[in-house]
Amino acid sequence: MAYASLEARGKLARKSDLTLKPRAGHLKHLLSTRTLDIDAVDDFCQLAEAYEVGVATPLRFGGKTVALLFFQPSTRTRIGFEVATVALGSHSIGIEDMSASRSNARTGESLEDCAAVISRLCDAIVVRHHEDGAAARMASKSQTPVINAGDGWNEHPTQALIDIFALRRGLGTIRGSSIAFGGDPRGRTVRSLVHLLRFEAPREIVFCPPPHYEVPGDILGAISENQIRYRIISDIKHALTDCSAIMMAPYDMSDIGEPAASGYVSPNATPDTHVITPEKIEQTRSKTLLYHPLPRHDEIHPACDDLPNAMYFEQVRLSKFMRMAVLDRMLSAN
Amino acid sequence: MAYASLEARGKLARKSDLTLKPRAGHLKHLLSTRTLDIDAVDDFCQLAEAYEVGVATPLRFGGKTVALLFFQPSTRTRIGFEVATVALGSHSIGIEDMSASRSNARTGESLEDCAAVISRLCDAIVVRHHEDGAAARMASKSQTPVINAGDGWNEHPTQALIDIFALRRGLGTIRGSSIAFGGDPRGRTVRSLVHLLRFEAPREIVFCPPPHYEVPGDILGAISENQIRYRIISDIKHALTDCSAIMMAPYDMSDIGEPAASGYVSPNATPDTHVITPEKIEQTRSKTLLYHPLPRHDEIHPACDDLPNAMYFEQVRLSKFMRMAVLDRMLSAN
Amino acid sequence: MAYASLEARGKLARKSDLTLKPRAGHLKHLLSTRTLDIDAVDDFCQLAEAYEVGVATPLRFGGKTVALLFFQPSTRTRIGFEVATVALGSHSIGIEDMSASRSNARTGESLEDCAAVISRLCDAIVVRHHEDGAAARMASKSQTPVINAGDGWNEHPTQALIDIFALRRGLGTIRGSSIAFGGDPRGRTVRSLVHLLRFEAPREIVFCPPPHYEVPGDILGAISENQIRYRIISDIKHALTDCSAIMMAPYDMSDIGEPAASGYVSPNATPDTHVITPEKIEQTRSKTLLYHPLPRHDEIHPACDDLPNAMYFEQVRLSKFMRMAVLDRMLSAN
Repeated sequence: MAYASLEARGKLARKSDLTLKPRAGHLKHLLSTRTLDIDAVDDFCQLAEAYEVGVATPLRFGGKTVALLFFQPSTRTRIGFEVATVALGSHSIGIEDMSASRSNARTGESLEDCAAVISRLCDAIVVRHHEDGAAARMASKSQTPVINAGDGWNEHPTQALIDIFALRRGLGTIRGSSIAFGGDPRGRTVRSLVHLLRFEAPREIVFCPPPHYEVPGDILGAISENQIRYRIISDIKHALTDCSAIMMAPYDMSDIGEPAASGYVSPNATPDTHVITPEKIEQTRSKTLLYHPLPRHDEIHPACDDLPNAMYFEQVRLSKFMRMAVLDRMLSAN
Repeated sequence: MAYASLEARGKLARKSDLTLKPRAGHLKHLLSTRTLDIDAVDDFCQLAEAYEVGVATPLRFGGKTVALLFFQPSTRTRIGFEVATVALGSHSIGIEDMSASRSNARTGESLEDCAAVISRLCDAIVVRHHEDGAAARMASKSQTPVINAGDGWNEHPTQALIDIFALRRGLGTIRGSSIAFGGDPRGRTVRSLVHLLRFEAPREIVFCPPPHYEVPGDILGAISENQIRYRIISDIKHALTDCSAIMMAPYDMSDIGEPAASGYVSPNATPDTHVITPEKIEQTRSKTLLYHPLPRHDEIHPACDDLPNAMYFEQVRLSKFMRMAVLDRMLSAN
Repeated sequence: MAYASLEARGKLARKSDLTLKPRAGHLKHLLSTRTLDIDAVDDFCQLAEAYEVGVATPLRFGGKTVALLFFQPSTRTRIGFEVATVALGSHSIGIEDMSASRSNARTGESLEDCAAVISRLCDAIVVRHHEDGAAARMASKSQTPVINAGDGWNEHPTQALIDIFALRRGLGTIRGSSIAFGGDPRGRTVRSLVHLLRFEAPREIVFCPPPHYEVPGDILGAISENQIRYRIISDIKHALTDCSAIMMAPYDMSDIGEPAASGYVSPNATPDTHVITPEKIEQTRSKTLLYHPLPRHDEIHPACDDLPNAMYFEQVRLSKFMRMAVLDRMLSAN
């Protein structure tokens, strides 16, 4: 959990670098991690750290407004963006339960119209939606940057940037390490993170999925394509033994593609083989770092929270700075 | 779509005019357009333009709070007021889904009590409600200005001010022109706008309503009373041929008088005779400007969006400045 | 309704007192009134008055964020905290309907996790919940102060501080007076207020509860323990005759322990014997001051609003300053 090296801090101190060469500054929207390059990722991480250590100037974006459009409920993502918006000096215009607004299936306004309207009133749009491609559809008609805060089963790019930032922080470097994914492998954060791992050169990626859900083919394809090894295990204990870090997720995320009003509940509780407990950590003398985009259900026992393995709440703390970095680049682009 | 003439800009530059003679400054509340006079309308439009071109000082209202009470769901109206509030330097205190609060039928707190309470905490109240007269009821007990953001079938005065501002912008002047209303003629925006058109001296007003809903008698009465001609047509194509501008609305707005929780959906899809399409515009070689308070359902085909006729998104952009003007005058009054 | 005496104002003017000796400054959280001492209560009241008369500096907390987590719906409490937050210069990060978020029973995130996450993003947490002890559970995992804005049947400490502030203001002093509680005696505000009354030395406490609900034993015990007399009456008219002030509450608050989504409605309307009307006030020539935490149902007739007895809307006005005082001390503590 070392902070930036002295050299890195030295670099950060040259504020002009950050301001003059925003290597992620060419991005019009942030819809997917597939289209990011290593320069953009490094830029986001560097700027996030600059905000964390107080080198980048906060409150630079006074008078700007960020629309938070959450067609799907959220606590931490929404609050995270709101906190980051405030820390930049701008204002968030929140719609926390878009299912209650007229921009929905019931009364039929399209996402495209919603984007056309909101983008004429606000300086950026953050959208979460239960449909794949919702953010891209909004971007097609938006006059301001659109940030995808989760679209159905597809992607959740800012969470993946947070994960990379927190993995780098915990491990020093991801290069050469073995990274495990616990829980439902079909979630959007898995896809977005795998696409970013192609720049980080891990030794291997290990999945510990429930037996009834397969790792999506496009995710395995992306891993192979980037010459990263992967394997599937059936007991999380092996990941505690073999891996430097585990990115946990709920055991079953089937509700991720459901509209807010559906009331659908994911059917499966996490079986013993897939739960992380203090006992297992002790038995395996594991030093594996534990990450989780949260919310957590029952897949990491709360008694793990005080162990040195637990990185998930530190990950939350870091998320603020990464979201500041993303919003900074998006707001600057216009 | 010309901006203010040089002469007009010259006038705007004399800030003292705006500050010293707020001709809408005598208004305690904004509940209806029936009680507005031409001076107040001109004042709102002039101040809106002053905010648009950057002549009026924004952020003048730091520390003021505006309560947004939306008993009925809304996206653009609510976000519009929130953006305008922020642009004035004040804070919006939002209740976006009042159906979830205890100020509702279920637990019985009256609108009057709600107004008495909120007005002791905030500097202005913006209210949308499914009941006719809801804003007036709140105003009767409020210690601060109440702005009607839509009350049932009754009125929506700020939308009408936005429409006038956008019609003047698009047409240069409304005087002598023919203005059409497409879609459900019973909506609150139609009534509010007709009341303002009495100052604008259009040549005629044309309605293209669905055959199953009549134009309300009080609206036709108000038109006749102001010596404006009107006629009813049954195909929107005639409006594309004959009129300078069409103010479209959804074909059926029956849900406008429903509480948020009712889940009622307006029953009718727009028939071909009442839909505006690029083909019809091309066939008629129409130069008619298209307006819409939005949200749009299927009454204007999205392929119209890029035609020079489409003014509805520009109307959204302009709405910000009109809402700033309205809030400015209301907050100044106290 | 006299303002602070000159002597008191003199004291307030010595700002350094307020800043240097925050006698409530040792509080990490505000969960209950049971654990407050007289010094803390006086400090809150003094600071509230300092904000009211403009002696304490507002906007001292720029850049701070306050999370408003309302798992149970609320209008005035939520807006009250939001207004106070804004008046202090900080930003509220609102979740007004937490039943729509994933931090709920449906998808299983615990209150403890919610607190762990939010407290890493915000500088204070205000929580309302339908479960007794919810605020304490959040405090156990929070890294920032937690303010209980009502937890089930248990407590509502900030409302009790507002009530004390407003009772002192109305009565001059509570010492030696007779204070009545009308309506459902099981509510959380009754408990919180009774605990604070132990510092105020009233002569007696009078309950006028519905016949079907008893005053909870722990509340009667706390009164006896503090050597305060109490009695139970069955007609509110006796309180209008005998008491200096009546703190009214809805006749039946059974919905206070219900989750937002339950749709449960309290079953009983207020019978004549328990309603306060202008006629009863006139008949008894009552000078009794009327308080109410609001929302009011039918237990005080609206025609009482303009009588000099009515203190409930003044109580709302004062609430802003007490909430500023509470937030000030909580934000300063960290």
